[in-house]
Amino acid sequence: MINLQDNSRVDTLIEARWVIPATANAAVLENHAVAIKDKRITSILPIDQGRNSIKADQVITLAEHALIPGLINAHGHAPMSLFRGIADDLPLKEWLEQHIWPLETEHVTEEFAYQGAELAIAEMLLGGTTCFADMYFFPDAVARAASNAHIRVQLASPILDFPTVWGQGPEEYIQKATALHDVYRNSELVYTAFGPHATYTVSDAPLQKISILAEELDIPIHMHIHETAAEVEEAVATTGKRPLERLADLGLISPRLLAVHGTQLSAEEMAMLNTMGAHVIHCPESNLKLASGFCEVAKLMSQGVNVALGTDGCASNNDLDMFSELRTAALLAKAVAKDASALPAYQALQMATINGARALGLEHSIGSIETGKFADLTAVRLDTINALPLYNPVSHLVYNTRSSQVSHVWVGGRAVVEDGNLLTLERRAIQEMARHWQHRIKKD
Amino acid sequence: MINLQDNSRVDTLIEARWVIPATANAAVLENHAVAIKDKRITSILPIDQGRNSIKADQVITLAEHALIPGLINAHGHAPMSLFRGIADDLPLKEWLEQHIWPLETEHVTEEFAYQGAELAIAEMLLGGTTCFADMYFFPDAVARAASNAHIRVQLASPILDFPTVWGQGPEEYIQKATALHDVYRNSELVYTAFGPHATYTVSDAPLQKISILAEELDIPIHMHIHETAAEVEEAVATTGKRPLERLADLGLISPRLLAVHGTQLSAEEMAMLNTMGAHVIHCPESNLKLASGFCEVAKLMSQGVNVALGTDGCASNNDLDMFSELRTAALLAKAVAKDASALPAYQALQMATINGARALGLEHSIGSIETGKFADLTAVRLDTINALPLYNPVSHLVYNTRSSQVSHVWVGGRAVVEDGNLLTLERRAIQEMARHWQHRIKKD
Repeated sequence: MINLQDNSRVDTLIEARWVIPATANAAVLENHAVAIKDKRITSILPIDQGRNSIKADQVITLAEHALIPGLINAHGHAPMSLFRGIADDLPLKEWLEQHIWPLETEHVTEEFAYQGAELAIAEMLLGGTTCFADMYFFPDAVARAASNAHIRVQLASPILDFPTVWGQGPEEYIQKATALHDVYRNSELVYTAFGPHATYTVSDAPLQKISILAEELDIPIHMHIHETAAEVEEAVATTGKRPLERLADLGLISPRLLAVHGTQLSAEEMAMLNTMGAHVIHCPESNLKLASGFCEVAKLMSQGVNVALGTDGCASNNDLDMFSELRTAALLAKAVAKDASALPAYQALQMATINGARALGLEHSIGSIETGKFADLTAVRLDTINALPLYNPVSHLVYNTRSSQVSHVWVGGRAVVEDGNLLTLERRAIQEMARHWQHRIKKD
Repeated sequence: MINLQDNSRVDTLIEARWVIPATANAAVLENHAVAIKDKRITSILPIDQGRNSIKADQVITLAEHALIPGLINAHGHAPMSLFRGIADDLPLKEWLEQHIWPLETEHVTEEFAYQGAELAIAEMLLGGTTCFADMYFFPDAVARAASNAHIRVQLASPILDFPTVWGQGPEEYIQKATALHDVYRNSELVYTAFGPHATYTVSDAPLQKISILAEELDIPIHMHIHETAAEVEEAVATTGKRPLERLADLGLISPRLLAVHGTQLSAEEMAMLNTMGAHVIHCPESNLKLASGFCEVAKLMSQGVNVALGTDGCASNNDLDMFSELRTAALLAKAVAKDASALPAYQALQMATINGARALGLEHSIGSIETGKFADLTAVRLDTINALPLYNPVSHLVYNTRSSQVSHVWVGGRAVVEDGNLLTLERRAIQEMARHWQHRIKKD
């Protein structure tokens, strides 16, 4: 009989030049090893000690690498990767109404969602992302793609007032969201949430229903909020209230709420988000590209609000590269705060890891390298020309690392990327599939 | 006898899926070839036509690549690559005075400059940069490093009021700048310029002398101007004039002037720069990281000012990655202009190529793929997972490309990078050299 308490025998022992756990004490552990057993981290200890005390089925030596928690992409629309770069240099409204929505009506099917998610997952895994929060049609298809590729996901089922390819109206969308939850309620890989699109596309009644159901099912609410100044102005003009005020009146501001974008937040609104424990998901590259505005990350954090990081859909980015997003976020936060000491490197790294876990309500399972958590891990080479010399590995991870330096990725202790190669997906098949959609969509 | 006019026999014929010349007509040439003879481009024509009409010593086929003009990094301090990431998250003044300047006094020698430049050049070549404008001590050492590695450079010899490792005062600095010019006046690879550091470090007399000499020698003046609000405020407090006003009074605003940064420019100052034909060098990542301010790129361009792109020194960036810089510039310009249609992709690509050539006064030799220009070329793979599907190659080059996709680079027709490998520098030797400096500098 196997003794589950015996951690001297483990599945995998990863020895790294640096282990950077993204914990509150801002630790950088030199020459440390991480032991993995039954999907989870069982110990973190100096390499020498590990070699003496632990017997592992497999030992991985990463002599020039930093081992960090897998990155958490806290907002996106994975299947939209098939629309990558199809419409650029356009304002949000025109981009959505004249390009993206018509394309979606024409092309989005279950097959599109599955295959688009596969492409997105391939890109995310290769870039060191081990968990993503997603809002898109056919979340059931995205769930299957994520399960098959072995990446962690939290699927916010979309809910809108009007019909789309995914349903006729709020009732059907909500029913589908709860049905998806039923399927995956015990999954350790696939999690669910409600995804009311935005205050300008969802009316009060469904929002109230979502609020009650989210409480009952104990799952998050994931929503675009205060993305642009125009959104806020139009809300005031039509409802007399700013969107956050309306959501507060409806009881939606809580630790369950992932408020995506938040480029327009007053000091009072920031204070309310903090008091009520809601999270802001910052998507800097999308905000820049669509000229949506600047999220005041340093101010939000100093007010105590948990800020996580997302790429947004790659039709408005145009990639799902969390290292690029992290760097943009770290650089931009300083300029927006007019303070070069704002959002220092370690804090930025936490934004891309543990803060994401916290926003998704998964901070006890993922987001940092700590005993008992799932072994969701990313290894990054730090001996490339662009990374030398190296005085501080955290500085390099934030200000200098390119996703091409990601060498290994594990999700729940299972290797999904090894030496820069995908293990759970076929790179060539995905390239062919993406080209197939390219020809199909371009023809129109 | 060789007939120099016979272009049916060439040295190299490069066949590419896309040739993107960065010319004013925003051309995207599908399945085109570029012929190279005696360092220069002799023709650009459809692949089929090239195969029929041209005999080449060497044919390179790039079936999934875009061929673009080599990127021009219009502002940097190459040897500072050895200080990469040594001091982050600090305001400009503290960063300079308490970290960078003491480090420079301690460590910068001719050897430091040569080897730091080698590291920088390796990173730049691998990232598709074929020409850089540089301002640093021991420009003679940087010139040798550039010549040996075969990259084009314009060296702005630094000039300051006070003593540094490079000289005792303005007289010596100016004498060294003209001496450097004498050595390289006929070089096709190494060009020179005057590099008065900034208005707060150089007084009127040397600036006037530089203005006269630049005219005589027919070379540019490369200077940090209006980098921060504090710089402008302090100038007004001490001289009663904004820096640009003082430079105008001294006669320095001309087509020879590369005004680096320009985050603080009034509408009148923009109009003056346009009227006088001066150039602005935009360094977005450095401006963000040091919280220096936002350069209004779209407004400058709409006023007619030529805006080029630079990484700045990689102690404030922390890399020399022009694809990353290009993307940051394209995204940021939209948010700063509050207009998602600002700085569209092709215009952004021109900023990183032909606009740089124009700023350096080299637009007749480099910066675009045109017959008669030097064959300074960069090939980028566009079949990676992150680049599929592909609806528009220019969109991908600007919003999506990572420097790791650069496969081939030519400078003056000579291959310097092939399949992602350096041909003129030893990667391992450079890694060892960078580590050597790391240990030497860290010990202090």
